[in-house]
Amino acid sequence: MKLQVAMDVLTTEAALELAAQVAPYVDIIELGTPLIKAEGLRAVTAIKAAHPDKIVFADLKTMDAGELEADIAFSAGADLVTVLGTAGDSTIIGAVAAATKHGKGIVVDLIGVSDKVTRAREVTALGAKFVEMHAGLDEQAEAGFSLDGLLNQGETAKVPFSLAGGVNIKTIASVQRAGATVAVAGGAIYGATDPAAAAAELRAAII
Amino acid sequence: MKLQVAMDVLTTEAALELAAQVAPYVDIIELGTPLIKAEGLRAVTAIKAAHPDKIVFADLKTMDAGELEADIAFSAGADLVTVLGTAGDSTIIGAVAAATKHGKGIVVDLIGVSDKVTRAREVTALGAKFVEMHAGLDEQAEAGFSLDGLLNQGETAKVPFSLAGGVNIKTIASVQRAGATVAVAGGAIYGATDPAAAAAELRAAII
Repeated sequence: MKLQVAMDVLTTEAALELAAQVAPYVDIIELGTPLIKAEGLRAVTAIKAAHPDKIVFADLKTMDAGELEADIAFSAGADLVTVLGTAGDSTIIGAVAAATKHGKGIVVDLIGVSDKVTRAREVTALGAKFVEMHAGLDEQAEAGFSLDGLLNQGETAKVPFSLAGGVNIKTIASVQRAGATVAVAGGAIYGATDPAAAAAELRAAII
Repeated sequence: MKLQVAMDVLTTEAALELAAQVAPYVDIIELGTPLIKAEGLRAVTAIKAAHPDKIVFADLKTMDAGELEADIAFSAGADLVTVLGTAGDSTIIGAVAAATKHGKGIVVDLIGVSDKVTRAREVTALGAKFVEMHAGLDEQAEAGFSLDGLLNQGETAKVPFSLAGGVNIKTIASVQRAGATVAVAGGAIYGATDPAAAAAELRAAII
């Protein structure tokens, strides 16, 4: 299981600083959607230039113009780009075409999809490299949220998936047991007093 | 009925040039999602600085972190910010809270929502200023696409709506007859040989 850090910061400078701290412990460096909207794709280029050996994940959450958005993100240096599972199939097909052209990959983010198992299988058939079983920041803040539903859906879908929804040191073992390809940690790393130590601890918890 | 130009260009320079050409004929200037992702919110700031008398519409298509994304877009100069109708209610509520704080507005983009009438009413009750009955660029490119379904859903919902889905000089009268608050034209303006003339012609077609 790979470890991905989701950098939900708002400036390229903060992202570069965080990436420098945690890169030794993670496989995938994600630029969060608010960061990309705030700074533009130059943030992706800056992170890839600083970490050419890491997989750079641009969380575009594309809903339309799939081929165009993926193309400009890959051209900017992204290795993986997200499209929303709530997008139409033609948007996902377009994004996959851009990924094929660049020799890179599309990840379909299932945030907001009610039947994640069915959609996971559909978009995998359309060429997604993997799906993201994802509860967003707003959903995590809702009363009664737990990771269990996402874990079950990941296990049931039987397609490659990452898991994102508040993964931390207490839950990462259950994520690995559910068979995730990638565990995504955001606040557990960037919100820690010592992000490098937090990332190292998560890395050590993966068997 | 107001006229909105959707600027689906990829650089701030191109957006400034297009806005300067068409501003005399439009009420609302929209920065498209690919433009914002490519350039960041500085593009919004540049357009608002150049056109302080126009309503600046930032098509963020927010799916998560509703309050945060709307807040940074309003701070950058946006007057209207979009949230996706496929987002959870908590995301829309957060974005509306940011709009209230800034004295600005949230538009809910119904792209990808299967029952647009029901969702239009729900998000209007949550505080959206209006909804966007929207077929995306990818959907418009699908075989058999027509504007009629969107027009019917707008008429049926009986809440304030804009209409976006390839509005042009042939269809703008039907958009007004359906009761739209705003007609959104993209390619019909930016794809024209003379964008100013195309915008003027659309403006003249509104009674």
